[in-house]
Amino acid sequence: MSELPEPVERVVALLSRLPGIGRRSAQRIAFHLVRQAPQDTRLLAEAIARLPDVLGPCLICGNLAPIGKPCSICEDPRRDRGLICVVEQADNLAAIERTGVYRGLYHVLGGAISPLKAIGPDQLRIEPLISRAKNGETRELILATNPTVEGEATALYLARLLAGSGIAISRPATGLPVGGELDYVDGLTLSRALEGRRSLSD
Amino acid sequence: MSELPEPVERVVALLSRLPGIGRRSAQRIAFHLVRQAPQDTRLLAEAIARLPDVLGPCLICGNLAPIGKPCSICEDPRRDRGLICVVEQADNLAAIERTGVYRGLYHVLGGAISPLKAIGPDQLRIEPLISRAKNGETRELILATNPTVEGEATALYLARLLAGSGIAISRPATGLPVGGELDYVDGLTLSRALEGRRSLSD
Repeated sequence: MSELPEPVERVVALLSRLPGIGRRSAQRIAFHLVRQAPQDTRLLAEAIARLPDVLGPCLICGNLAPIGKPCSICEDPRRDRGLICVVEQADNLAAIERTGVYRGLYHVLGGAISPLKAIGPDQLRIEPLISRAKNGETRELILATNPTVEGEATALYLARLLAGSGIAISRPATGLPVGGELDYVDGLTLSRALEGRRSLSD
Repeated sequence: MSELPEPVERVVALLSRLPGIGRRSAQRIAFHLVRQAPQDTRLLAEAIARLPDVLGPCLICGNLAPIGKPCSICEDPRRDRGLICVVEQADNLAAIERTGVYRGLYHVLGGAISPLKAIGPDQLRIEPLISRAKNGETRELILATNPTVEGEATALYLARLLAGSGIAISRPATGLPVGGELDYVDGLTLSRALEGRRSLSD
């Protein structure tokens, strides 16, 4: 049984480390990269190589931004500056932006508190969040960390930290996904949805 | 609703063209590439950029090989030179190699005959296959093109082209996947498996 040529094996190994890519799909991609026109493969390599040179965390909120500058959301004068939505990662921010309904600002923590992964509050962008929250402009913090154990713990931690500050603290509802079928919803989500039921009779 | 920063959008667009990667996963990967240590992102970019510089089709069989050279399989003296397994792409070859049971040579066609995609026999490496097959050493051709309409048509075309050449022509069996459950097998595969049933009473 012969091995893959070293340059291909190397690309496969590096691609396998990316989120959502297993060895099998990494291999499929690597073969595609060898097979397609060389200029297309080079275009991809250049676009990837450019990323760390041009993008860094926004100086204000931690979102992706041109290096050393605030992001387009922080600079947008039409955004409601009284509202800050706190998320774990810039991807989460992008997901909320795609909905098109949120018009406030964001704050990217860079993760969630996780004793298992040895991530404490100090490893997250919590200090800058507190100073932003207390700048006098902020009316409400929406703690949109993930609905996981770590995300919940982080939200709870932040809520305690800001208790008594006069800033409203909220968290997005957990419940049934729209368009989903009850049979396919996991038990925890279902029980949360039932606990959080809303009256239709008012 | 704000857009992704241009350098990220560009990587997302290029990644989405790869096999098995949709826009959602391309975005997840792009964010990961921005977030991880810059040297890791550069390593990936360099490994990808290197591919077209160092690899090309094997001069003999069309498998991946160092540019301008035969591949490691064609050069391996322990391989049975009387047997050529014909596949559509180098990935298919790699899949067969992973099984570790095949000890012959290969021939990579570079695709399958497909009137819909305007791929005729002339676009494939069929000429070199015929000369190889007729070199006096070849006893058998295994036509391992994919079990799809195009793959079947290509196998049939090759079988006709080589009829009367004295070379044995075969095709891997189609049938039930090992370990699969009958309920989950598609109807065509199931009917093929029934047609191709083997007697256990001999």
